Amino acid sequence: MSWIDEVPWNEQGLIPAIAQDAASGRILMVAWMNRESLELTSRDNQAVYWSRSRNRLWRKGEESGHVQSVVEIRLDCDADAILLRVQQAGGIACHTGRQSCFFRKLENGRWVTTDPVLKEPSQIYGKS
Amino acid sequence: MSWIDEVPWNEQGLIPAIAQDAASGRILMVAWMNRESLELTSRDNQAVYWSRSRNRLWRKGEESGHVQSVVEIRLDCDADAILLRVQQAGGIACHTGRQSCFFRKLENGRWVTTDPVLKEPSQIYGKS
Repeated sequence: MSWIDEVPWNEQGLIPAIAQDAASGRILMVAWMNRESLELTSRDNQAVYWSRSRNRLWRKGEESGHVQSVVEIRLDCDADAILLRVQQAGGIACHTGRQSCFFRKLENGRWVTTDPVLKEPSQIYGKS
Repeated sequence: MSWIDEVPWNEQGLIPAIAQDAASGRILMVAWMNRESLELTSRDNQAVYWSRSRNRLWRKGEESGHVQSVVEIRLDCDADAILLRVQQAGGIACHTGRQSCFFRKLENGRWVTTDPVLKEPSQIYGKS
């Protein structure tokens, strides 16, 4: 059996994937993968996800340049998720221009933004 | 609007939650939360998940003693996931007796177990 057949794809053929910064350990983002995206990620050592909103492969950084070089791919025991340890180009994983998508923290009953915007999204995506 | 209403629960009323060791940064596990489990986690600073297999609240460590004290709760930008930064009792999060559930790594087309069993599951759960 191929390693990719050991991944318990859900009914939609997807599995969540966590991207973690290999240097800092910071969790950068969570996205989804289908079989093809995991195969490509493994083959090229560049993170490729499946965009559920756009219903197509999403090569992370294809628009922003913020690609993720994959250092390591891990699978958990009951295979709820894939873990990618990555080197994050530009130090920005989030479409809001922040390092991590997890930039809100629960404090006294409110989600408080704790992380600065490192680059304005208009500067990242504004090429029209 | 309450902070908990800002969490975009899926059709099943669930959201995936990642538990990360607050000290080492290691990703320990991924599980699911429903509204009640997140409320309890926030109130008591102890991780409570929703067991999809048992269809009930799952107080992490209720059988194993490997509870998770919650240091921080984070939410990502498009709210695909909750992140818990935790202190892991016993240093074991996985039901296999390992520190992390992500104990398999992809190497040359195979999932290779890289982490030692710290305590035999029979010693963790064997109380009959």
